[in-house]
Amino acid sequence: MRASQYHLNTLKEAPAEAEVVSHQLMTRAGMIRKIAGGIYTYMPMGLKVLRKIEAIVREEMNRAGAIELLMPVVQPAELWQESGRWEQYGAELLRIKDRHQRDFVLQPTSEEVITDIARNEIHSWRQLPVNFYHIQTKFRDERRPRFGLMRGREFTMKDAYSFDRDEASAQASYDAMYAAYQRIFTRLGLTFRAVAADTGSIGGTRSHEFQVIADTGEDLIVYNPDSDYAANIELAEAPCLLAEREPAREALEKRATPEAPKCEIVAEQLGLPLSRTVKSVVLATDPAEGPVRLWLLLIRGDHETNEVKVGKLPGLGDGYRLATEAEIDSVFHCAPGYLGPVGVDRQAVTVIADRTVAHMGDFVCGANEAGYHLSGVNWGRDLPEPDLVADLRNVVAGDPDPRGGTLAIQRGIEVGHVFFLGDKYSRALNATFLETDGKPAVLQMGCYGIGVSRISAAAIEQNHDERGMIWPRAIAPFEVVLCPIGIGKSVAVREAAESLYQALLAQGVDVILDDRDARPGIMFADWELIGVPLRVTLGERGLKDGIVEIQARRDAQAQRIAPADALAHVLERLKSL
Amino acid sequence: MRASQYHLNTLKEAPAEAEVVSHQLMTRAGMIRKIAGGIYTYMPMGLKVLRKIEAIVREEMNRAGAIELLMPVVQPAELWQESGRWEQYGAELLRIKDRHQRDFVLQPTSEEVITDIARNEIHSWRQLPVNFYHIQTKFRDERRPRFGLMRGREFTMKDAYSFDRDEASAQASYDAMYAAYQRIFTRLGLTFRAVAADTGSIGGTRSHEFQVIADTGEDLIVYNPDSDYAANIELAEAPCLLAEREPAREALEKRATPEAPKCEIVAEQLGLPLSRTVKSVVLATDPAEGPVRLWLLLIRGDHETNEVKVGKLPGLGDGYRLATEAEIDSVFHCAPGYLGPVGVDRQAVTVIADRTVAHMGDFVCGANEAGYHLSGVNWGRDLPEPDLVADLRNVVAGDPDPRGGTLAIQRGIEVGHVFFLGDKYSRALNATFLETDGKPAVLQMGCYGIGVSRISAAAIEQNHDERGMIWPRAIAPFEVVLCPIGIGKSVAVREAAESLYQALLAQGVDVILDDRDARPGIMFADWELIGVPLRVTLGERGLKDGIVEIQARRDAQAQRIAPADALAHVLERLKSL
Repeated sequence: MRASQYHLNTLKEAPAEAEVVSHQLMTRAGMIRKIAGGIYTYMPMGLKVLRKIEAIVREEMNRAGAIELLMPVVQPAELWQESGRWEQYGAELLRIKDRHQRDFVLQPTSEEVITDIARNEIHSWRQLPVNFYHIQTKFRDERRPRFGLMRGREFTMKDAYSFDRDEASAQASYDAMYAAYQRIFTRLGLTFRAVAADTGSIGGTRSHEFQVIADTGEDLIVYNPDSDYAANIELAEAPCLLAEREPAREALEKRATPEAPKCEIVAEQLGLPLSRTVKSVVLATDPAEGPVRLWLLLIRGDHETNEVKVGKLPGLGDGYRLATEAEIDSVFHCAPGYLGPVGVDRQAVTVIADRTVAHMGDFVCGANEAGYHLSGVNWGRDLPEPDLVADLRNVVAGDPDPRGGTLAIQRGIEVGHVFFLGDKYSRALNATFLETDGKPAVLQMGCYGIGVSRISAAAIEQNHDERGMIWPRAIAPFEVVLCPIGIGKSVAVREAAESLYQALLAQGVDVILDDRDARPGIMFADWELIGVPLRVTLGERGLKDGIVEIQARRDAQAQRIAPADALAHVLERLKSL
Repeated sequence: MRASQYHLNTLKEAPAEAEVVSHQLMTRAGMIRKIAGGIYTYMPMGLKVLRKIEAIVREEMNRAGAIELLMPVVQPAELWQESGRWEQYGAELLRIKDRHQRDFVLQPTSEEVITDIARNEIHSWRQLPVNFYHIQTKFRDERRPRFGLMRGREFTMKDAYSFDRDEASAQASYDAMYAAYQRIFTRLGLTFRAVAADTGSIGGTRSHEFQVIADTGEDLIVYNPDSDYAANIELAEAPCLLAEREPAREALEKRATPEAPKCEIVAEQLGLPLSRTVKSVVLATDPAEGPVRLWLLLIRGDHETNEVKVGKLPGLGDGYRLATEAEIDSVFHCAPGYLGPVGVDRQAVTVIADRTVAHMGDFVCGANEAGYHLSGVNWGRDLPEPDLVADLRNVVAGDPDPRGGTLAIQRGIEVGHVFFLGDKYSRALNATFLETDGKPAVLQMGCYGIGVSRISAAAIEQNHDERGMIWPRAIAPFEVVLCPIGIGKSVAVREAAESLYQALLAQGVDVILDDRDARPGIMFADWELIGVPLRVTLGERGLKDGIVEIQARRDAQAQRIAPADALAHVLERLKSL
């Protein structure tokens, strides 16, 4: 491609609304243009990146035996009503009416349609296993879209759906997708981690997220640097930090802690480490029949409650909420901020202690009296043992890994998700097949998503510097840029650039020749912003001295190479970019 | 591809609602599955065809210098309000509201968005000319979608938009697209015709449709078999069939024509050829100020009125309608069916004669009295000359071509359209650039569409027989199918099939090996339905005799070829398919 025949339009400033670096840089580089909130035009270079990502995804999906089809963007409400998601899905599901006032949705995902296809197309065990995928435009009506392609409303996703005879076969299909995802993200040139993830309300048994590692990521990943353990923070098991119950050394004492409704303030007032304090969280559940039930969760003052883990506790799995002040007062006779487990009516509230809290001795907690806490609190002596001990908290960096070693935490951007669905959708839509015994059996499903457009943003969040983007070669808008200086005046420069350009094209390199005859500073700034992985600069003086300059986007300085060696050098450098 | 690892699901019967052959065959072959009215899933083989069409379109667009980008499916109402089409576009424009009750559309076309992009991206004459295109999902909310992919609601289209400094440059951009379209439809392997088309209400000066020739097409194409003249019926100029005014030989006579409100009945009652009769059509226009105006159109009894041509007549260009019976009665004092130009008040009605009618003598027309017609009517003698003589009718086969030779008519399916837009959208959206003199000038635009998914249906309408589809090689779901007979039992068959399969793959041939171990009748019926252009059959008996059978889809019978020559033979045959 010649720049003069392409559309380049870089901007000095990013729009003020662009909060994340990928949004800022893609806009400045002219890769995307906003048309409405969360809706963008992929400009030519943005589309090139997208297509390169799609091609790698497609190749590896095909290699894994998945079969590509294309389901529509506009889907009839009937299928979503059959699965129950017409009601369950929130406002992100854009519901529309056609000219005949019939209901449709703009698809945010295609479980319903693919299950409908499967129940019509799959009749016999002989047709199984099968895995269908498509790469399609999706729409999620985010309330406040604002992170560019990181969280757009209209976006491109690859979603695959496997159908199997039984759970063992479905697990094999899952494993095949997991392996394909490893190949995909490796080929994309991204630093990533497959992390075990929560299966949520779907209730399947297995789920992994593929996370691109980036400091700006929204997700927290728990991992062990010395093993292959990785899980997202919702799922990662937090260990008990005390091998045994600490012995009671202090007497129970009521301490004045005025204006100290938080553990941090209590610890400061009492001159104790935060890790000696225990915070009380009161939850409520509303059973189908009978009165409200209250739950007192106890978590160490320096730890955070993990809502997903709480939602899996016995009695709390069908949904819970924070207790109201009135509900709390009816049992604790005290306002929040000074609550604690000592002296509470265990008929009226179930006490659940985090694993670490259950082993603490001489701890500090609220006295159930405004302005007072208790210190030197000990299980057994000052209050009965907890009703339940469980993992209630988020892992923190430095926690011991129960499998050995120490846990660390990093941030990531979720770009892929593999999920064993079981029969959730196939049962709702009655998608069955005839087994070898001639009897109908329900299909076992898995679903496997990759956020194609999101990957382009995640790649930038992971790979950029103060000058712009730094693309991995595999998904760069161009692999090489040739910057001839003074191409308008110098025949030697023009001929050398043209010759190298043609030689690179002949080698299948995706090269752009910047023939705009712009000043070097403008060319360099543009291509550093755009993040082309390798730049070749040709100038009249250099050519006279028998050199061209070759510089990878991450190199601190250029290498000087003889023009005759430039082609071979570029091809060699590209291998590692 | 191996059939055992692919998804094949052919049907014996087409759905009753499938009215056109492409819809029937694509459904039976399992290439599409209906999800809702006019909304389909492209099943794996249907998608393969689509992608092959897209690839050819993309290659030729790029070769012509157009630059690909991707505009969104969901577009904000504001841009459509700015162009005026939010109000003008009918119910086919699906208008939707997001969660914040903001108005959007599902794009049926992207003039507004591309013009918005152009006004933001194009600042200087130095950036011109430029041509942007995308291949994207579109939605037109057809009232009664029923022709499969011929007229779906959700469909895939390529649309390109050129931007130029002035009209001369815009015409060159138009010519470049016209040439690219010629290459595209030639490469697709379709018999097509570029026909001059009406520019309609947009008022541009040039427009061509690219029509795939098919007896089942909805459009009528006028062409000259001995020249390159071709135009759609709306535009094609109909000549005067009488070189000079016919002399008056008969006397004016009032004839009883009871129950004869149509020329066909009048001609039969009077024992005259239909071509001696003249029909009267009364139209009305409603000026912004003043009373309704009436117009009497006179067309030979065997000719059809061309509404597009009528719409271009002076005084009728801003919209016309049929006159009401009351309006007709006020001038003609007679009900429709017996109207004519003799004796009418020429102050109250403007008489416009078709070119041929203006040269007729001794013609028959209504007597303005129910149950009577006049014969022997002659201009000048019996009534004043027409107020206007114009081309009012459709061409009929056999009409002389004013440029020499004779015109013929065939049916076609519109699959592409090139259109010079001028400044319609750029002026509405104020898309300007700075000219060399530093002053702003309005961009000149062209738009260029190709119905990607429609092409797949049009290819079938043009190429099929009673057994199924017959794909041109370039867009066939597979180029070659290998049908090994008894692959499950015969090692020789399996090995020969596998060997040829691998050899074809190595040559880059898109081949499918039917390894389902099905009976030959089933295999042949499936692949003839699917329409793979070339089939190779391998059986144990044939291999013993040293032959495999190679049959193109259109061949009456197979050729027997030595297995060692099969590869070369297939490659040679493919060149002409």
